[in-house]
Amino acid sequence: MKPFRAFFMNREQHKFTETDIRYMKQAFELAAKGTGFVNPNPLVGAVIVKDGEIISEAYHEKFGGHHAEINAINNAKKPVDGATIYLNLEPCSHFGKTPPCSLALIENKIGKVVIAMTDPNPLVSGKGIKMLKDHGIEVTVGILEDEAKKLNEVFIKFITTGLPFAVLKTAMSLDGKIASSTGNSRWISNETSRKFVHHLRNKYSAIMVGVETVINDDPLLTCRILGQSTGNPVRIITDTKLRIPLNSKVINSENARTIIVTGPDADVRKINKLKNKGVEFVSTHLKNNRVDLNELMKKLGKLNIDSVLIEGGGTLNFSAIYEGIVDKIYSFIAPKFIGGKEAKTPIEGKGVEKVADAFEIENISLQNFDNDIMITGYIRK
Amino acid sequence: MKPFRAFFMNREQHKFTETDIRYMKQAFELAAKGTGFVNPNPLVGAVIVKDGEIISEAYHEKFGGHHAEINAINNAKKPVDGATIYLNLEPCSHFGKTPPCSLALIENKIGKVVIAMTDPNPLVSGKGIKMLKDHGIEVTVGILEDEAKKLNEVFIKFITTGLPFAVLKTAMSLDGKIASSTGNSRWISNETSRKFVHHLRNKYSAIMVGVETVINDDPLLTCRILGQSTGNPVRIITDTKLRIPLNSKVINSENARTIIVTGPDADVRKINKLKNKGVEFVSTHLKNNRVDLNELMKKLGKLNIDSVLIEGGGTLNFSAIYEGIVDKIYSFIAPKFIGGKEAKTPIEGKGVEKVADAFEIENISLQNFDNDIMITGYIRK
Repeated sequence: MKPFRAFFMNREQHKFTETDIRYMKQAFELAAKGTGFVNPNPLVGAVIVKDGEIISEAYHEKFGGHHAEINAINNAKKPVDGATIYLNLEPCSHFGKTPPCSLALIENKIGKVVIAMTDPNPLVSGKGIKMLKDHGIEVTVGILEDEAKKLNEVFIKFITTGLPFAVLKTAMSLDGKIASSTGNSRWISNETSRKFVHHLRNKYSAIMVGVETVINDDPLLTCRILGQSTGNPVRIITDTKLRIPLNSKVINSENARTIIVTGPDADVRKINKLKNKGVEFVSTHLKNNRVDLNELMKKLGKLNIDSVLIEGGGTLNFSAIYEGIVDKIYSFIAPKFIGGKEAKTPIEGKGVEKVADAFEIENISLQNFDNDIMITGYIRK
Repeated sequence: MKPFRAFFMNREQHKFTETDIRYMKQAFELAAKGTGFVNPNPLVGAVIVKDGEIISEAYHEKFGGHHAEINAINNAKKPVDGATIYLNLEPCSHFGKTPPCSLALIENKIGKVVIAMTDPNPLVSGKGIKMLKDHGIEVTVGILEDEAKKLNEVFIKFITTGLPFAVLKTAMSLDGKIASSTGNSRWISNETSRKFVHHLRNKYSAIMVGVETVINDDPLLTCRILGQSTGNPVRIITDTKLRIPLNSKVINSENARTIIVTGPDADVRKINKLKNKGVEFVSTHLKNNRVDLNELMKKLGKLNIDSVLIEGGGTLNFSAIYEGIVDKIYSFIAPKFIGGKEAKTPIEGKGVEKVADAFEIENISLQNFDNDIMITGYIRK
């Protein structure tokens, strides 16, 4: 169990009705529409029901915009007094960019609030619920709580630890290769899988690779989803000795932020040259002659980056696993054999000495993209 | 599509009833009970139904024993005249170890015969059906034909090509490793998966490894299923230069046949020493300085070995794939990361140069053993 999941407050157990479950699932679906647009805010959906009829559906659409509750009240087809609102997350109780949503629910005389999970932020958790109850509003908490936590796993980690939720994505053949022995890697996974990866690049705030990947593949690292204009993730390149070629695409394409992570001894003249091209820099101490990934995560958190998708080569991937920064994994497996003693594999580095010391993956689920298989899971901590 | 599957005869299309399907599935389940005991015969199950009641269930239990049809007639609780018999395979029409089953069905006045698939042996296919029809018995063919073919995929390949059905079994971590960089491999897959592998060793007639595996792991290569006495598979060791240590367990445990496959230049004195210990030898020409696996398959077929489970290291596994001898694969994936640039992977050798030339696996299915995932499929030919 991850520490950042252990924020349960005194959960009230109810028997929830089929109807409650249906409306809450609807709220989840609405919330998910904000994926990629609201970071580092949580995903929130709202459904307002009156006399057995849905009179409003809304969600938090983009960072800086209205919260879901406000959108739902504003969009309602009928007066919301006495109605029930379904929310995947406890409404806020503090004055931030917007007035507290709990207050709006009270002022608009909402009759009942059904909430999947309390606010994971320990500083405010339960306060919104208390405010509602103090004003005589019926509140029910805990319906589909596990699903609600999964929906906002990024937000939960970020708000409780200040660290980005780190996701490792790998793609290999059924014999564990990410390229042939000659370095050819186009394409291990199929088109459907690769399209899905662009959705991951939309979902998470940043994408991280090692400089070796930039040197070898010269990727753009942008999010390309057909027919949808999405924000590109921040591109993060770990480059201890600042070896990145000045003509790399990530440096010369301005449609996404680029952060290079160096060690303390990186060449200042090259840094300045790159800063002039708009590249940002983060520096960390060295750990085993590489940038310290834990220090990096703290610094990225302070930059308000709530999530990082690691698409590294075997060296960076092993460091990320070994240093304990990875929360979730997406492992694509293409049903083909490539062979080759010299062919690269998704996680290399030094490795563990004994299989008994391997990093275990739990809460596994499977999905297929045509013939490719995608395994998702969480690193046991 | 594999050539040995292309033996369709003029299949008669019927609308099969739910009842027919249920009885035929029952016949499949009975047939499967013979797994590991009837090779190189086919798996056959029989259900006799009279007046809506099952009056007999039987299967071909062991090589040399009665065929399923005869067992079913002998075991029937009531006279079988006018009854319907469900068979996953066309009854035989020739005098072999036993008189033809078609004749027994005729003599016992069976009323109707429902058959899933015709005999794949091109020399006799359709003759049993013709014999039945010539005697006025109603015959229905083709119900659940695909499942029937899958059930007897070993028999079908062997009878149509004279070559063993070759199965590659691998077990790796989710980052493609079969051992840590130090060579530790206990255990990649979990206990439930490893138990299942012993069922595979029971199912297939022989198990094949390279001499490197014998030198490194000194395995017994027997079939150990708790509470069940099963025949051990024939142990086949490819050992071009006859490097096998004389104290290896496979040589000094007499509970299973052992065949060593050498090239033409193997040391005759060592061969004789090993023959004195009961070891058998097969010699092949060399191909790329290794034993010629296609020649080996022909020779194993002539030894009446209908199936081979390859549990090799990366070198043998790649040769087997590259030389085109592999039909089916079982790939176990354990949800853990081992890492290690030097750690071994399931298929090594030279590998393909381009991913586009990789060996594709089709007709994939997934199964889990606790948290391990097993992917089965067939090499596209």
